Amino acid sequence: MANDEVILLDSWPSMFGMRVRVALAEKGVEYEYKEEDLFTSKSPLLLKMNPVHKKIPVLIHNGKPVCESLVAVEYIDEIWKDKAPLLSSDPYERAQARFWAAYTDKLYDFGRRIWTATREEFGGGKKDLIDPLKLLEESALGDKPYFGGEGFGFVDIALIGFYSWFYTYETFGNFSIEAECPKIVAWGNRCMQRESVSKSLADPHKICEVLLEFRKKQGLE
Amino acid sequence: MANDEVILLDSWPSMFGMRVRVALAEKGVEYEYKEEDLFTSKSPLLLKMNPVHKKIPVLIHNGKPVCESLVAVEYIDEIWKDKAPLLSSDPYERAQARFWAAYTDKLYDFGRRIWTATREEFGGGKKDLIDPLKLLEESALGDKPYFGGEGFGFVDIALIGFYSWFYTYETFGNFSIEAECPKIVAWGNRCMQRESVSKSLADPHKICEVLLEFRKKQGLE
Repeated sequence: MANDEVILLDSWPSMFGMRVRVALAEKGVEYEYKEEDLFTSKSPLLLKMNPVHKKIPVLIHNGKPVCESLVAVEYIDEIWKDKAPLLSSDPYERAQARFWAAYTDKLYDFGRRIWTATREEFGGGKKDLIDPLKLLEESALGDKPYFGGEGFGFVDIALIGFYSWFYTYETFGNFSIEAECPKIVAWGNRCMQRESVSKSLADPHKICEVLLEFRKKQGLE
Repeated sequence: MANDEVILLDSWPSMFGMRVRVALAEKGVEYEYKEEDLFTSKSPLLLKMNPVHKKIPVLIHNGKPVCESLVAVEYIDEIWKDKAPLLSSDPYERAQARFWAAYTDKLYDFGRRIWTATREEFGGGKKDLIDPLKLLEESALGDKPYFGGEGFGFVDIALIGFYSWFYTYETFGNFSIEAECPKIVAWGNRCMQRESVSKSLADPHKICEVLLEFRKKQGLE
């Protein structure tokens, strides 16, 4: 796959884009990163490559698009299968990983409610976000170092982008995720020790700054 | 896998349950079917086997639960892999199938809006349902007999349960799906010629009757 052309249409604060970035980094795949400015206009390439959802991330492999972040991560795992397997070879473990990875998607809406809340509503979304994080902590992570066990894998990749948003959720929601879900935060810190993660995730403070600007423009601050 | 114990927790009108039923039938897997009455109370077994979502369908294979219908279908394809492959062996085709299968999920909410609408709202939800069906017709099915090409597979299984709800959507929405999406209806008829499908799908008129009763109880009729 040395001569493969790999392009990623992405937006730097996207936790879904981060999934694809981390997966490519785990596999050691070189790619061209193309930043989409979602606040102004979407590029003709994005509209052409993802006409259905018109959303990032889009992985373009030798000219062919793969849309939806978890679909792309699984595709990456299947194409570059000789290095850093992300899904177990056991069908039951694969099913469990797919179940929990899909579950992490719901964090997006709960998180969004927090950073789009008015000042008066602040704190109201805490339970909605903490409850699924606690469920992930208790039912899926437990005392294992990673969701799949000893090795970093599919569910870790699904969730890790949200970790870079924790600071934003805590700032606008006025609560501490670590106080509620210490094992999840410890897991996030553990993942950050991997170069594939630390180099792929956005700076939490930068995310928070951008959203503060967004809130000001929306009249929420 | 001859001595496997396979149990399906399901509810007969569920298009998501139908996915698992069709997949098991395609593979020739015998199983015990347990009907859940979702309108009264959920069984202790369902609550134990799917504590996260508390929803059917749940496939229980040798005592271990697999939740979420598309996860279960993929699990079935991986466990009983020697017969009737549902996903292609080509990673790009697999990614495309996963993308479109996930896309079909959104039909549920659009359809639900139609059969929960008041009499005055009837017809309002037509475009919301027809637009994604047209997209599926034009972008994913085209002139192929099945979504994956010549063979019945993953996307067909994802969508076919909705086909048994078409009569209900048409009745309460007051429109003809065949007039708008003739290729989708022809595809559904083609799928119904397979015993795995015809024996797994619910009777469209029975679905409609049950929903009429539901609507009366809700004061919508």
